Amino acid sequence: MIEYIHSIKIYYRDVDRMGIVYYSRYFEYFEESRTELLASIGIDITSIEQEGTTLPVISSHCDFKKGAKFEEEILVKTWINEKPRSTLKINYEVF
Amino acid sequence: MIEYIHSIKIYYRDVDRMGIVYYSRYFEYFEESRTELLASIGIDITSIEQEGTTLPVISSHCDFKKGAKFEEEILVKTWINEKPRSTLKINYEVF
Amino acid sequence: MIEYIHSIKIYYRDVDRMGIVYYSRYFEYFEESRTELLASIGIDITSIEQEGTTLPVISSHCDFKKGAKFEEEILVKTWINEKPRSTLKINYEVF
Amino acid sequence: MIEYIHSIKIYYRDVDRMGIVYYSRYFEYFEESRTELLASIGIDITSIEQEGTTLPVISSHCDFKKGAKFEEEILVKTWINEKPRSTLKINYEVF
Repeated sequence: MIEYIHSIKIYYRDVDRMGIVYYSRYFEYFEESRTELLASIGIDITSIEQEGTTLPVISSHCDFKKGAKFEEEILVKTWINEKPRSTLKINYEVF
Repeated sequence: MIEYIHSIKIYYRDVDRMGIVYYSRYFEYFEESRTELLASIGIDITSIEQEGTTLPVISSHCDFKKGAKFEEEILVKTWINEKPRSTLKINYEVF
Repeated sequence: MIEYIHSIKIYYRDVDRMGIVYYSRYFEYFEESRTELLASIGIDITSIEQEGTTLPVISSHCDFKKGAKFEEEILVKTWINEKPRSTLKINYEVF
Repeated sequence: MIEYIHSIKIYYRDVDRMGIVYYSRYFEYFEESRTELLASIGIDITSIEQEGTTLPVISSHCDFKKGAKFEEEILVKTWINEKPRSTLKINYEVF
């Protein structure tokens, strides 16, 4: 298993009229977090793509417990349990 | 059951380096589509919120089959099967 | 001169904590509007790009008079005065 | 004069089909950078808003020299020359 904890600060651009992060932005935070997970083990996606491999998302799911607010810092824990095959499951927890 | 089919044109802002719509944007299209589903039966969310009710998303899921491309028009079918209670399941299909 | 008036409805994704459209989204609306201006005279950008020409923005400016609100429809008038050369000035007015 | 240099890493979400950051995202980076400029002198915008003051952008301008790419880190220098009055001019340079 590999695991990485990444800190993200919330800016105005992502906060909606309810005062919490607009729901789809979490998927952007997950992209950022998995990029940092890979960077932490020396993998950059630019190089992977230059070798002709793309990494499209094929399924995504998120349960929203509590809305993050403007100027808060959230921690995103990202982990991969299994050995990567043609598809890869990446897990995220925000706290 | 209520159902609505909404057309969305894809602009540059949503298309990534792979030439397809960046995955989280579909959740924005779903928000647009459910807003139009509600508008089609005479409900606007602004009025609902003014009465003190907010409608936060509590769970979202999407399987991605095929990436939409710049200047394409997609159709989003949105439907609600069940009678709304405190939570509401909204379904989407893009084609 | 060519001119086009394009209607855009405001969704939750673009509205911030002040209840108005977040400022950078207007530049996305301008992209949408110039794409529709070009479409109205039979030009699609996908074809232009396939011929090897890209159209990067080199300068952008916006004065904000009044914030558009959720579920409002705005009209964006887009016009080009001059004959296009290597650079092109596109004008927008929101009302 | 106050000045702050803020580092931003570019993620997939902001990169378009030309392989460079989509133009409007720079305005999001400027928002992030001015928030950090203010944080560096002990000011948080949440507190300012709670006292009843909002800080809407009234004009924005950007000249684009060179497109930042995915997984690059850019530096945004933000500075304020003048003494703040009812309006405030904030300058940015990306390098």
